[in-house]
Amino acid sequence: MSQDLVIAVDAMGGDHAPDVVVKGLALAAVRHPQVHFHLYGDEARVGPLLNEHPALAPACTLTHTAEAVSSEDKPSQAVRNGRKSSLWLAIDAVKQGQAAGVVSAGNTGAFMAMAKLILRTLPGIDRPAIATVLPTLRGESVVLDLGANAECNANNLVDFAIMGEVFARTVLALERPTVGLMNIGSEAGKGTDAERDAAARLSDSTLPISFHGFVEGDDLAKGTVDVVVTDGFTGNVMLKTLEGTARLYTQFLRQAYSSSLLAKLGYLMSRPALEKVKARTDPRRYNGAMLLGLTGVAVKSHGGTDALGFANAVCVAIDLVSQGFNETIKGEFGKVEMPLAAPAAAP
Amino acid sequence: MSQDLVIAVDAMGGDHAPDVVVKGLALAAVRHPQVHFHLYGDEARVGPLLNEHPALAPACTLTHTAEAVSSEDKPSQAVRNGRKSSLWLAIDAVKQGQAAGVVSAGNTGAFMAMAKLILRTLPGIDRPAIATVLPTLRGESVVLDLGANAECNANNLVDFAIMGEVFARTVLALERPTVGLMNIGSEAGKGTDAERDAAARLSDSTLPISFHGFVEGDDLAKGTVDVVVTDGFTGNVMLKTLEGTARLYTQFLRQAYSSSLLAKLGYLMSRPALEKVKARTDPRRYNGAMLLGLTGVAVKSHGGTDALGFANAVCVAIDLVSQGFNETIKGEFGKVEMPLAAPAAAP
Repeated sequence: MSQDLVIAVDAMGGDHAPDVVVKGLALAAVRHPQVHFHLYGDEARVGPLLNEHPALAPACTLTHTAEAVSSEDKPSQAVRNGRKSSLWLAIDAVKQGQAAGVVSAGNTGAFMAMAKLILRTLPGIDRPAIATVLPTLRGESVVLDLGANAECNANNLVDFAIMGEVFARTVLALERPTVGLMNIGSEAGKGTDAERDAAARLSDSTLPISFHGFVEGDDLAKGTVDVVVTDGFTGNVMLKTLEGTARLYTQFLRQAYSSSLLAKLGYLMSRPALEKVKARTDPRRYNGAMLLGLTGVAVKSHGGTDALGFANAVCVAIDLVSQGFNETIKGEFGKVEMPLAAPAAAP
Repeated sequence: MSQDLVIAVDAMGGDHAPDVVVKGLALAAVRHPQVHFHLYGDEARVGPLLNEHPALAPACTLTHTAEAVSSEDKPSQAVRNGRKSSLWLAIDAVKQGQAAGVVSAGNTGAFMAMAKLILRTLPGIDRPAIATVLPTLRGESVVLDLGANAECNANNLVDFAIMGEVFARTVLALERPTVGLMNIGSEAGKGTDAERDAAARLSDSTLPISFHGFVEGDDLAKGTVDVVVTDGFTGNVMLKTLEGTARLYTQFLRQAYSSSLLAKLGYLMSRPALEKVKARTDPRRYNGAMLLGLTGVAVKSHGGTDALGFANAVCVAIDLVSQGFNETIKGEFGKVEMPLAAPAAAP
């Protein structure tokens, strides 16, 4: 096999699979012509789609499976019964060394359960974290954990900080990314034990991390730091609140613009400028949640996304592989002193 | 003393005190001409301001104190050294029965520490919660806890649910308010023990609560439920994320509108319609975080608010008193069965 980068793809995951998957791959292939894609899914449905994309087809191999995890399946069910599903096979391809990363738009719980089971965490990491890049006033920040771990101890938070910092350095190409720990106030005594302990360890100057200190919920959008670290419960609520607020504003604006003829005309005149805002905050540009900390790259696309969104998720996976994220993480955790692995209270 | 409603006011708390305080009271007095205000603060500064508001002055009494809690004071310092401060005296007035509620725009930590110490919680309630009303796609929802308690057990969450429901019924005048518990998924197994236990108890049909079940971060803006319950850490991050996202959108829009002559013209034409959106999401309309669960009404205004915002906080306090919130709470917790007070794991 050539040394080209290979990405395994769950062709049957997501609301509009396999159509959106194949179309998304076609877009990603334009940006990354050297990448190979190993697709797993129903030959009868995926085959014809590949034929419609002659520029993409040579970069793809397709392994047939009639089974797929459905969106209603519980993670435990999927793990027990889905060993021949497109999702399982795609993740397993990474385990077997046939692909460097896997992308799916399918059942999130199943994706995470299978990925953790098959791929396992890298040495020194206890729990993987879901991370994503979000737009801010200053540009972009990476945020984790967004839901993999409902409860975290100080060790987990420190691991997430290291992983987030490595991501910002390797993939976002920031020289000295700043890291902030989400809390409910900037004063030292605030928050829970886990936050305080993690902050104390991160402030330790032997770590190669530019630790800013505590940040609050509004610091995310401000772009106060490049990496925002929090436990999975808080992160998930934070992310969904952000999405909900964005939708609220979009809805209010839509109502305002359609409320009178004058407003409609005003909208038409402002439209080119407003389209730029829309592009800057377009969720499809940020589609692709990364499960960081596993022995292989695993990226989860929103289930309902379109081809452009799926292509973005694929490109996120490609970037993680090509920028050597996992190799750098292994190096960082190899260097890290024992005190970081000090026992902490169980979550 | 007459049976009129009396509100104690910390005249020296906040970035623009006492000016904004007095101007805000003047606005509130227009809406509530029967309310009396007991102000605490520096006579030399507050007196002349009252003279400038002859319609307000007769409704006010002013007790002089030269001391005030500063915005830098740690809560423990303030409690130890601030027994003659305007903030302490105002809260103590409620304890002494001289006022039914207290409003301050000052140091939040000091406000909460003093209020909890002086006023104590109502029978059956272990911890008070900070609550506020927020705009949603459907109208308004009340959200708590927004930061009083970094960690909560199931008992606390159930208490918050009851308090939130009573608020929605008595002050928001909703007949059968729905209550949702913030979580990271709607499935029963999600989240932490505290969430799962609280949900189990709230689902118990002997409680007079219309429990919807779990909600996620984006349900807040959607207005899926009338009352959103969460622990203080999550709530605080949620609220600040919401505020930060709103500011991000406002900033992006401002940049878009000033980016070209055409966009500027478009903005002018849409402005009347956009002003309606601005009004609907104006933070001053929602200014006034309520500390629910204490033996007296206590409302905290944002420190940097203007007269309109402060007036809103005052009106929130007046509504809580006039709608009999605390009396209704006492009744609800009196009715509630012992199982609700079952010992839960310490947070």
